Amino acid sequence: MTVTIRPATPQDATLILRFIRELAEFEREPDAVKATEESLRHALFDERSAEAVIAEQEGKPMGFALFFHNFSTWTGRRGIYLEDLYVTPEARGLGIGKALLRHIAALAVERGCGRFEWAVLDWNEPAIRFYDACGAESMDEWTVRRVSGDALLALAGRD
Amino acid sequence: MTVTIRPATPQDATLILRFIRELAEFEREPDAVKATEESLRHALFDERSAEAVIAEQEGKPMGFALFFHNFSTWTGRRGIYLEDLYVTPEARGLGIGKALLRHIAALAVERGCGRFEWAVLDWNEPAIRFYDACGAESMDEWTVRRVSGDALLALAGRD
Repeated sequence: MTVTIRPATPQDATLILRFIRELAEFEREPDAVKATEESLRHALFDERSAEAVIAEQEGKPMGFALFFHNFSTWTGRRGIYLEDLYVTPEARGLGIGKALLRHIAALAVERGCGRFEWAVLDWNEPAIRFYDACGAESMDEWTVRRVSGDALLALAGRD
Repeated sequence: MTVTIRPATPQDATLILRFIRELAEFEREPDAVKATEESLRHALFDERSAEAVIAEQEGKPMGFALFFHNFSTWTGRRGIYLEDLYVTPEARGLGIGKALLRHIAALAVERGCGRFEWAVLDWNEPAIRFYDACGAESMDEWTVRRVSGDALLALAGRD
Protein backbone atom coordinates (compact mmCIF):
# COMPACT_ATOMS: atom_id res chain seq x y z
CA MET A 1 0.00 0.00 0.00
CA THR A 2 1.29 3.42 -0.91
CA VAL A 3 1.87 6.09 1.70
CA THR A 4 0.94 9.61 0.64
CA ILE A 5 2.32 12.63 2.45
CA ARG A 6 0.43 15.88 2.02
CA PRO A 7 0.57 19.33 3.69
CA ALA A 8 -1.96 19.76 6.51
CA THR A 9 -4.94 22.08 5.95
CA PRO A 10 -7.03 24.03 8.53
CA GLN A 11 -9.52 21.12 8.41
CA ASP A 12 -6.85 18.85 9.90
CA ALA A 13 -6.67 20.72 13.25
CA THR A 14 -8.89 18.15 15.03
CA LEU A 15 -6.84 15.26 13.68
CA ILE A 16 -3.51 16.91 14.53
CA LEU A 17 -4.65 17.63 18.09
CA ARG A 18 -5.68 13.97 18.48
CA PHE A 19 -2.26 12.84 17.23
CA ILE A 20 -0.48 15.32 19.57
CA ARG A 21 -2.45 13.93 22.53
CA GLU A 22 -1.69 10.32 21.59
CA LEU A 23 2.01 11.19 21.29
CA ALA A 24 1.99 12.94 24.70
CA GLU A 25 0.44 9.81 26.23
CA PHE A 26 3.17 7.69 24.69
CA GLU A 27 5.72 10.19 26.08
CA ARG A 28 4.20 9.64 29.57
CA GLU A 29 2.89 13.21 29.79
CA PRO A 30 -0.83 12.80 29.02
CA ASP A 31 -1.78 16.06 30.80
CA ALA A 32 0.93 18.17 29.17
CA VAL A 33 -1.07 19.18 26.10
CA LYS A 34 -2.51 22.69 26.52
CA ALA A 35 -2.87 23.25 22.75
CA THR A 36 -6.38 23.57 21.35
CA GLU A 37 -7.70 23.18 17.81
CA GLU A 38 -7.89 26.97 17.65
CA SER A 39 -4.30 27.57 18.85
CA LEU A 40 -3.01 25.00 16.35
CA ARG A 41 -5.01 26.50 13.50
CA HIS A 42 -3.71 29.96 14.40
CA ALA A 43 -0.08 28.82 14.65
CA LEU A 44 -0.07 26.68 11.51
CA PHE A 45 -2.23 28.72 9.16
CA ASP A 46 -2.32 32.37 10.38
CA GLU A 47 0.93 32.99 12.23
CA ARG A 48 2.73 30.25 10.25
CA SER A 49 5.13 29.57 13.10
CA ALA A 50 5.15 25.87 12.21
CA GLU A 51 4.19 23.52 9.36
CA ALA A 52 2.58 20.10 9.43
CA VAL A 53 2.24 17.19 7.01
CA ILE A 54 -0.15 14.23 7.21
CA ALA A 55 0.73 10.66 6.16
CA GLU A 56 -2.17 8.74 4.63
CA GLN A 57 -2.75 5.28 3.27
CA GLU A 58 -5.76 5.00 0.96
CA GLY A 59 -7.15 8.23 2.41
CA LYS A 60 -6.78 7.10 6.03
CA PRO A 61 -4.51 9.31 8.20
CA MET A 62 -1.75 7.21 9.76
CA GLY A 63 0.55 9.82 11.25
CA PHE A 64 1.88 13.33 11.06
CA ALA A 65 4.97 15.47 11.41
CA LEU A 66 5.15 19.03 12.69
CA PHE A 67 8.23 21.17 12.13
CA PHE A 68 9.56 24.73 11.94
CA HIS A 69 12.68 26.54 10.80
CA ASN A 70 15.48 27.09 13.25
CA PHE A 71 18.72 28.93 12.55
CA SER A 72 22.38 28.11 13.10
CA THR A 73 25.00 30.82 13.57
CA TRP A 74 27.67 28.27 12.58
CA THR A 75 26.15 27.36 9.21
CA GLY A 76 24.70 30.90 8.82
CA ARG A 77 21.57 29.23 7.42
CA ARG A 78 18.12 28.07 8.39
CA GLY A 79 17.59 24.46 9.36
CA ILE A 80 14.48 22.40 9.98
CA TYR A 81 13.56 21.34 13.49
CA LEU A 82 11.12 18.46 13.76
CA GLU A 83 8.97 19.06 16.83
CA ASP A 84 6.69 16.00 16.53
CA LEU A 85 6.77 12.78 14.53
CA TYR A 86 3.94 10.35 15.18
CA VAL A 87 2.59 7.18 13.60
CA THR A 88 -0.57 5.54 14.96
CA PRO A 89 0.07 2.21 16.78
CA GLU A 90 -1.77 0.16 14.14
CA ALA A 91 0.32 1.67 11.34
CA ARG A 92 3.76 1.07 12.86
CA GLY A 93 6.33 -1.04 11.07
CA LEU A 94 5.09 -0.02 7.62
CA GLY A 95 7.79 2.56 6.98
CA ILE A 96 5.55 5.58 7.57
CA GLY A 97 7.91 7.21 10.08
CA LYS A 98 10.78 6.82 7.64
CA ALA A 99 8.65 8.22 4.81
CA LEU A 100 7.83 11.29 6.95
CA LEU A 101 11.50 11.80 7.86
CA ARG A 102 12.57 11.43 4.22
CA HIS A 103 9.88 13.90 3.13
CA ILE A 104 11.10 16.56 5.56
CA ALA A 105 14.76 15.87 4.76
CA ALA A 106 13.91 16.51 1.10
CA LEU A 107 12.18 19.78 2.05
CA ALA A 108 15.30 20.77 4.02
CA VAL A 109 17.51 20.14 0.98
CA GLU A 110 15.11 22.00 -1.38
CA ARG A 111 15.04 24.99 0.97
CA GLY A 112 18.83 25.13 1.30
CA CYS A 113 18.85 24.18 4.97
CA GLY A 114 22.13 23.14 6.58
CA ARG A 115 20.66 20.79 9.19
CA PHE A 116 17.64 18.68 10.03
CA GLU A 117 17.23 18.19 13.77
CA TRP A 118 14.88 16.79 16.39
CA ALA A 119 15.02 15.45 19.95
CA VAL A 120 14.46 11.97 21.32
CA LEU A 121 13.61 10.73 24.83
CA ASP A 122 16.48 8.73 26.33
CA TRP A 123 14.25 5.71 27.14
CA ASN A 124 12.72 5.48 23.64
CA GLU A 125 15.03 2.70 22.40
CA PRO A 126 13.16 1.84 19.17
CA ALA A 127 13.23 5.52 18.12
CA ILE A 128 16.94 5.81 19.02
CA ARG A 129 17.80 2.75 16.87
CA PHE A 130 15.67 4.13 14.02
CA TYR A 131 17.40 7.54 14.16
CA ASP A 132 20.83 5.86 14.35
CA ALA A 133 19.94 3.99 11.14
CA CYS A 134 18.99 7.33 9.51
CA GLY A 135 22.52 8.65 10.07
CA ALA A 136 21.51 11.12 12.81
CA GLU A 137 24.29 12.26 15.14
CA SER A 138 23.60 12.48 18.89
CA MET A 139 24.32 15.94 20.26
CA ASP A 140 25.22 14.38 23.62
CA GLU A 141 27.37 17.26 24.85
CA TRP A 142 24.39 19.63 24.85
CA THR A 143 21.51 19.90 27.33
CA VAL A 144 18.44 22.00 26.59
CA ARG A 145 17.50 24.43 29.38
CA ARG A 146 13.97 25.75 29.68
CA VAL A 147 12.34 28.67 31.48
CA SER A 148 8.55 28.76 31.51
CA GLY A 149 5.60 29.74 33.71
CA ASP A 150 6.48 31.66 36.89
CA ALA A 151 10.23 31.30 36.26
CA LEU A 152 9.79 33.03 32.88
CA LEU A 153 7.79 35.87 34.44
CA ALA A 154 10.45 36.24 37.16
CA LEU A 155 13.32 36.34 34.64
CA ALA A 156 11.35 38.90 32.62
CA GLY A 157 10.95 41.04 35.77
CA ARG A 158 7.17 40.59 35.73
CA ASP A 159 6.79 38.72 39.00
CA MET B 1 27.98 51.79 34.11
CA THR B 2 24.70 51.20 32.38
CA VAL B 3 24.22 48.36 29.93
CA THR B 4 22.08 49.18 26.91
CA ILE B 5 20.49 46.45 24.82
CA ARG B 6 19.43 47.38 21.31
CA PRO B 7 18.22 45.44 18.25
CA ALA B 8 21.00 44.65 15.76
CA THR B 9 21.06 46.51 12.42
CA PRO B 10 22.54 45.41 9.06
CA GLN B 11 25.64 47.45 9.98
CA ASP B 12 26.29 45.04 12.87
CA ALA B 13 26.92 41.99 10.63
CA THR B 14 30.72 42.31 10.95
CA LEU B 15 30.50 42.61 14.72
CA ILE B 16 28.07 39.69 15.05
CA LEU B 17 30.29 37.45 12.92
CA ARG B 18 33.26 38.37 15.13
CA PHE B 19 31.26 37.47 18.25
CA ILE B 20 30.06 34.18 16.68
CA ARG B 21 33.68 33.24 15.90
CA GLU B 22 34.85 34.12 19.42
CA LEU B 23 32.03 32.03 20.88
CA ALA B 24 32.89 29.07 18.59
CA GLU B 25 36.51 29.28 19.80
CA PHE B 26 35.33 29.20 23.40
CA GLU B 27 33.13 26.20 22.50
CA ARG B 28 36.28 24.43 21.16
CA GLU B 29 35.04 24.46 17.56
CA PRO B 30 37.02 27.35 16.02
CA ASP B 31 36.61 26.00 12.47
CA ALA B 32 32.88 25.33 12.73
CA VAL B 33 31.75 28.78 11.61
CA LYS B 34 30.73 28.74 7.94
CA ALA B 35 28.50 31.83 8.27
CA THR B 36 29.57 34.97 6.43
CA GLU B 37 28.59 38.61 6.92
CA GLU B 38 26.38 38.24 3.88
CA SER B 39 24.60 35.08 5.08
CA LEU B 40 23.98 36.69 8.49
CA ARG B 41 22.66 39.89 6.92
CA HIS B 42 20.35 37.84 4.69
CA ALA B 43 19.04 35.68 7.55
CA LEU B 44 18.56 38.50 10.06
CA PHE B 45 17.31 41.31 7.84
CA ASP B 46 15.88 39.82 4.60
CA GLU B 47 14.65 36.32 5.44
CA ARG B 48 14.12 37.26 9.13
CA SER B 49 14.71 33.70 10.25
CA ALA B 50 16.41 34.97 13.41
CA GLU B 51 16.79 38.16 15.47
CA ALA B 52 19.79 39.61 17.26
CA VAL B 53 20.38 42.17 20.00
CA ILE B 54 23.62 43.90 20.95
CA ALA B 55 24.64 44.77 24.53
CA GLU B 56 26.62 48.00 24.83
CA GLN B 57 28.26 49.99 27.58
CA GLU B 58 28.90 53.64 26.73
CA GLY B 59 28.58 52.80 23.05
CA LYS B 60 31.05 49.89 23.21
CA PRO B 61 29.62 46.50 22.15
CA MET B 62 30.14 43.97 24.93
CA GLY B 63 28.08 41.02 23.78
CA PHE B 64 25.12 39.81 21.81
CA ALA B 65 22.26 37.36 21.74
CA LEU B 66 20.75 35.68 18.69
CA PHE B 67 17.37 33.95 18.86
CA PHE B 68 14.39 32.74 16.85
CA HIS B 69 10.88 31.51 17.45
CA ASN B 70 10.29 27.81 17.93
CA PHE B 71 6.91 26.15 18.48
CA SER B 72 5.58 23.68 21.04
CA THR B 73 2.71 21.33 20.23
CA TRP B 74 2.14 20.92 23.99
CA THR B 75 1.67 24.63 24.74
CA GLY B 76 0.20 25.24 21.26
CA ARG B 77 2.23 28.44 21.17
CA ARG B 78 5.44 29.92 19.90
CA GLY B 79 8.45 30.04 22.19
CA ILE B 80 11.82 31.73 21.93
CA TYR B 81 14.95 29.67 21.36
CA LEU B 82 18.23 31.38 22.19
CA GLU B 83 20.84 30.15 19.72
CA ASP B 84 23.80 32.20 20.94
CA LEU B 85 24.55 34.27 24.04
CA TYR B 86 28.00 35.81 24.21
CA VAL B 87 29.77 38.37 26.37
CA THR B 88 33.36 39.43 25.56
CA PRO B 89 35.97 38.15 28.05
CA GLU B 90 36.80 41.66 29.35
CA ALA B 91 33.13 42.38 30.06
CA ARG B 92 32.33 39.23 32.04
CA GLY B 93 31.10 39.46 35.61
CA LEU B 94 29.29 42.76 35.02
CA GLY B 95 25.83 41.23 34.64
CA ILE B 96 25.68 41.62 30.86
CA GLY B 97 24.71 37.98 30.24
CA LYS B 98 21.93 38.27 32.78
CA ALA B 99 20.74 41.54 31.22
CA LEU B 100 20.59 39.84 27.78
CA LEU B 101 18.67 36.85 29.19
CA ARG B 102 16.23 39.16 31.02
CA HIS B 103 15.72 41.21 27.86
CA ILE B 104 14.80 38.15 25.80
CA ALA B 105 12.62 36.72 28.60
CA ALA B 106 10.70 40.01 28.58
CA LEU B 107 10.30 39.76 24.78
CA ALA B 108 8.99 36.21 25.22
CA VAL B 109 6.39 37.39 27.74
CA GLU B 110 5.36 40.38 25.56
CA ARG B 111 4.94 38.09 22.55
CA GLY B 112 2.83 35.55 24.46
CA CYS B 113 5.44 32.79 24.25
CA GLY B 114 5.06 29.75 26.49
CA ARG B 115 8.75 28.94 26.85
CA PHE B 116 12.23 30.42 26.61
CA GLU B 117 14.86 27.79 25.81
CA TRP B 118 18.50 27.35 24.91
CA ALA B 119 21.20 24.66 25.12
CA VAL B 120 24.37 24.47 27.19
CA LEU B 121 27.54 22.40 26.79
CA ASP B 122 27.91 19.84 29.58
CA TRP B 123 31.44 21.01 30.51
CA ASN B 124 30.53 24.70 30.74
CA GLU B 125 30.14 24.75 34.54
CA PRO B 126 29.94 28.55 35.03
CA ALA B 127 27.12 28.74 32.45
CA ILE B 128 25.30 25.79 34.04
CA ARG B 129 25.42 27.46 37.48
CA PHE B 130 24.25 30.75 35.95
CA TYR B 131 21.29 29.07 34.20
CA ASP B 132 20.40 27.16 37.38
CA ALA B 133 20.23 30.51 39.19
CA CYS B 134 17.91 31.82 36.46
CA GLY B 135 15.37 29.07 37.22
CA ALA B 136 16.02 27.14 34.01
CA GLU B 137 15.03 23.46 34.06
CA SER B 138 17.39 20.87 32.51
CA MET B 139 15.68 18.81 29.83
CA ASP B 140 17.95 15.89 30.69
CA GLU B 141 15.68 13.19 29.29
CA TRP B 142 16.01 14.56 25.77
CA THR B 143 18.91 14.29 23.30
CA VAL B 144 19.03 16.34 20.13
CA ARG B 145 19.67 14.32 16.97
CA ARG B 146 21.12 15.98 13.87
CA VAL B 147 21.33 15.05 10.20
CA SER B 148 23.49 17.27 7.99
CA GLY B 149 25.83 17.14 5.01
CA ASP B 150 25.97 13.80 3.17
CA ALA B 151 23.63 12.11 5.69
CA LEU B 152 20.99 14.77 4.98
CA LEU B 153 21.34 14.27 1.22
CA ALA B 154 21.08 10.49 1.70
CA LEU B 155 17.95 10.76 3.87
CA ALA B 156 16.46 13.13 1.30
CA GLY B 157 17.16 10.54 -1.43
CA ARG B 158 19.60 12.88 -3.18
CA ASP B 159 22.75 10.81 -2.80
